[in-house]
Amino acid sequence: MALIVQKFGGTSVGDTERIKNVAARVARTRAAGHDVVVVVSAMAGETNRLVKLAYEIDAQPIGREYDVLVSSGEQVSIALLALALDRAGVPARSFLGHQISMITDTTHGRARIESVGSDVLEATLARGEIAVVAGFQGIDKDGNITTLGRGGSDTTAVALAAALKADVCEIYTDVDGVYTADPRLVRGARKIPRISYEEMLELASLGAKVLQTRSVEFGMKYEVPIHVRSSFDESEGSWVVPEEETMEQVVVRAVTYDKNEARISVLGVPDRPGIAARVFDSLADAEIVVDMIIQNASHERDGHTDLTFTVPKESATQALELMQQLASELGAAEVRADSNIAKVSVVGVGMRSHSGVAAKMFRVLSGAGMNIQMIATSEIKISVVIDEVYTELAVRVLHQAFGLDAEPSVAAE
Amino acid sequence: MALIVQKFGGTSVGDTERIKNVAARVARTRAAGHDVVVVVSAMAGETNRLVKLAYEIDAQPIGREYDVLVSSGEQVSIALLALALDRAGVPARSFLGHQISMITDTTHGRARIESVGSDVLEATLARGEIAVVAGFQGIDKDGNITTLGRGGSDTTAVALAAALKADVCEIYTDVDGVYTADPRLVRGARKIPRISYEEMLELASLGAKVLQTRSVEFGMKYEVPIHVRSSFDESEGSWVVPEEETMEQVVVRAVTYDKNEARISVLGVPDRPGIAARVFDSLADAEIVVDMIIQNASHERDGHTDLTFTVPKESATQALELMQQLASELGAAEVRADSNIAKVSVVGVGMRSHSGVAAKMFRVLSGAGMNIQMIATSEIKISVVIDEVYTELAVRVLHQAFGLDAEPSVAAE
Repeated sequence: MALIVQKFGGTSVGDTERIKNVAARVARTRAAGHDVVVVVSAMAGETNRLVKLAYEIDAQPIGREYDVLVSSGEQVSIALLALALDRAGVPARSFLGHQISMITDTTHGRARIESVGSDVLEATLARGEIAVVAGFQGIDKDGNITTLGRGGSDTTAVALAAALKADVCEIYTDVDGVYTADPRLVRGARKIPRISYEEMLELASLGAKVLQTRSVEFGMKYEVPIHVRSSFDESEGSWVVPEEETMEQVVVRAVTYDKNEARISVLGVPDRPGIAARVFDSLADAEIVVDMIIQNASHERDGHTDLTFTVPKESATQALELMQQLASELGAAEVRADSNIAKVSVVGVGMRSHSGVAAKMFRVLSGAGMNIQMIATSEIKISVVIDEVYTELAVRVLHQAFGLDAEPSVAAE
Repeated sequence: MALIVQKFGGTSVGDTERIKNVAARVARTRAAGHDVVVVVSAMAGETNRLVKLAYEIDAQPIGREYDVLVSSGEQVSIALLALALDRAGVPARSFLGHQISMITDTTHGRARIESVGSDVLEATLARGEIAVVAGFQGIDKDGNITTLGRGGSDTTAVALAAALKADVCEIYTDVDGVYTADPRLVRGARKIPRISYEEMLELASLGAKVLQTRSVEFGMKYEVPIHVRSSFDESEGSWVVPEEETMEQVVVRAVTYDKNEARISVLGVPDRPGIAARVFDSLADAEIVVDMIIQNASHERDGHTDLTFTVPKESATQALELMQQLASELGAAEVRADSNIAKVSVVGVGMRSHSGVAAKMFRVLSGAGMNIQMIATSEIKISVVIDEVYTELAVRVLHQAFGLDAEPSVAAE
C-alpha cells in the first residue's frame, strides 16, 4: 500500500463527465489499496472567465482581491470531484487552502509556499477517505487568500506529497509525458522515460509547459518522485527523479523553445560604473522579470556600450517606456525593442562531461541560415535567441543533430 | 456619522456594470461620512449554474460538498465589488465567512448563525476601509463551510448589523419596498412605509420573497432597523421596525400568497391516540417540513378521522410515498395528494384589536365563488388554502375588501 498524490489539471476536470472519469480513476487507485490525496485545478476556461471579469472592472486589479476571485475556480472543482467520488462509492472530503494550512508568503498572484499542514489530511486518510485539495491557492500568515500563479496546482501537489512523505506525485495532464521536443513541431519527438529534476527544472523554466518550475524545485528539494502521465489512458508517462548515473551518457535530453519574450536594447550607453545597476533597478522596481542579459564590451564608439536583455512579452511596452525615460538621463543613444524573437534551448546533464555542445549548436543553426542574437549558458543548458520565424526550424534541426529523433522503425512509440 | 450595513442581491451585482453601480452607491454613502459594511450575494444566475453542475453529478448531493460548491458564487462577487470600490477610489477589503468568524450550526444548506465575530470588521472600518462580506455562507465549529439557504444573504446582513450595533441594515433589492400585495397581481398595491417585525415575519414566512424569514427574526431579536429599498433609485423604501402605537389602527397590513405547497390527506384513519404522532414523526425523520395541519373530528364513519396537511411542493412525492406506506400499517382508507393549491393570507397587528376579520375574509372569498379547503390562524394572520387557479382573484378581492387599494388619485405613489 502506497500513499499517492494525484494532480488533475483543468482539462481533466473540464466538465462534469470528465470529473466523473477522474473520480473513476481515483477510485481504481483506492481499490488497489492505496491512500490517495487528489489535487485539482479549476475547470478549463473558468480561470480565464474570472480574470476577464476582473479586467472588466480594473485594468490593474489589486492582488488581494484578484486572488480571492480566481481561487474560487478550484473551490468549484474540489466540491464537484468530492461529490463524484462519493457518488462512485468512495468517501471523500474537499479542502481549501486555508483548511489544510497551506501557508504562503503575501506575493499575491505568484505566492510561494512556506509551509503545509499535514494533520488534517492524515486524519482524513486514516478514516479511509480520499482528500480532495484545491490546487493553486493558499493563505498568508494573516489569513488572506493567495494564489501560486499559472500552473500552481502542480506545486500544490508536489508540496503536499513532500509534506505527507508520499511515495509518488502523479501529474495527470493532456499530454502523456515529457518529450524530447514539442511533438506538435517535431514528428520524431520521443517521450523521455526518466529525467532528472535538474533537467526538468531547466526545461520548465525554458518554456516547456508540462510542469510549473516551482513544483520541480519542490520535488528536487524533498526528493519527491514525480510521474507525469496522461489523464486519458493508463500508459506509463515520464518520471522526474534524482539524477541517475546513466543519465550523463545522453548529451542533450531535450530541445525546447519559448516565444513569450521580447528583446530590449539600450544602445550607446556611456560605459560608467553603476549604469547597469540603474537599468535593472528600474526594471525591478516595476516588478519586470528580466531573463537574459548581455552587455557588449565597449567597441568602436569609445567609452560606450550596448545593453541588451529579454523580458516577458507582456512587460515589453512598459520596459521600453522605462528605458526611454532612462535613456536621456544616462545619455544613451537609442532604445530598441523587438518582440519577434524566440529562445531555443538544448538541455541535458550530459553536457557536464561532453565538450563542444555549444559549438555544435551554433554550427547547426548557422548552417540552416539562422543568425544568433543572444546566447546564455549554464552547466546543463544552452539557450540562444533567434528571429521568431525560425523557431520551428531551429527546434527540428537541433533535435535531429543531437540524435534525438526516433528511429523510423520505432517512430510510433 | 452612522454605521450602515448595505446588502445587495444577485440582480444588483448581476454583471460588472451593475457591480460598478453598486460601488458608486456605496462610495456615495461613504462620502456622506458613514462607515459601511457591504454584504453581497452571488451574481444573478451563478448559484443556479453551480447547482446544475452538482445535479449533473449526483441527484442527491451531500450537503458538505454542496455548500463548498455554491458558496464560491459569493466569493466571486465580493472580490469584484472590492475591486470596483478600489477603482472608484474607496479602499475596500473582501471577507469570506471564515475570515470574520461567521459561525453556524452544521445543518448544511440551511445552517443557522450561532455567532459572528466583529473584531476584524471593526478593525477594517477603523482603517477607513469598506468591508465587503460574502453573504449566505459561514463555517461550523470544525471549519466546514456552511450555507444559510436561499435568501441567506439577508440574514448575513442583519446578523452583521446586530453584531456591529449598526444604525441601520439596508436591503437593496429589485423592488422598492414591501407592498400591500404583489404589485404584479394587484394594480392598486401600495408600498408600506413602516411595518412591524412581527408583521414582516408573517409575510416572509407566508410567501412574500422580499426578505428571508430568519433575517427578520434576527432584526426583531436585536432591534435592528431594516430598510428595504430599491437598488435602482434613491427613493425611500419600507422600514421594518419595532411595533409602533399607530400600527394597530390598520386591521390588515398586507395580503400575500404562496403557491409552493401541496396538500396531502390521509383519509379514514382509525381515531386512536398516537396516530398523528406516527404520521408526523415519519415526515420529520425524512426532514419534510410540514406547514398547516388539520385533523377533522370523527364523523359519520364512527371512530375514523381524516388528517390533512401541507408540505413544500418539492417534498410532495416523497410525503405521498411515506403516507402510502404508513396507510396500511395504520389501517387508513386512502391517501390523496393535491399540488394545485395556493395559500392566501392576510396579515396585520390590527387584528389583535379588531374582531370579525376571519368572518369577513371567508365571506369575501365565498362571495367570489371560492371554496376554502383549509384554514390556519395566528394572532396577527389568517391563512386559507384554495384551488391554485383562484390565487390572483383571491388576492385582489381581499386587497380591495380590506381597504388596501390605493385611492385612484394617489395610485402613482
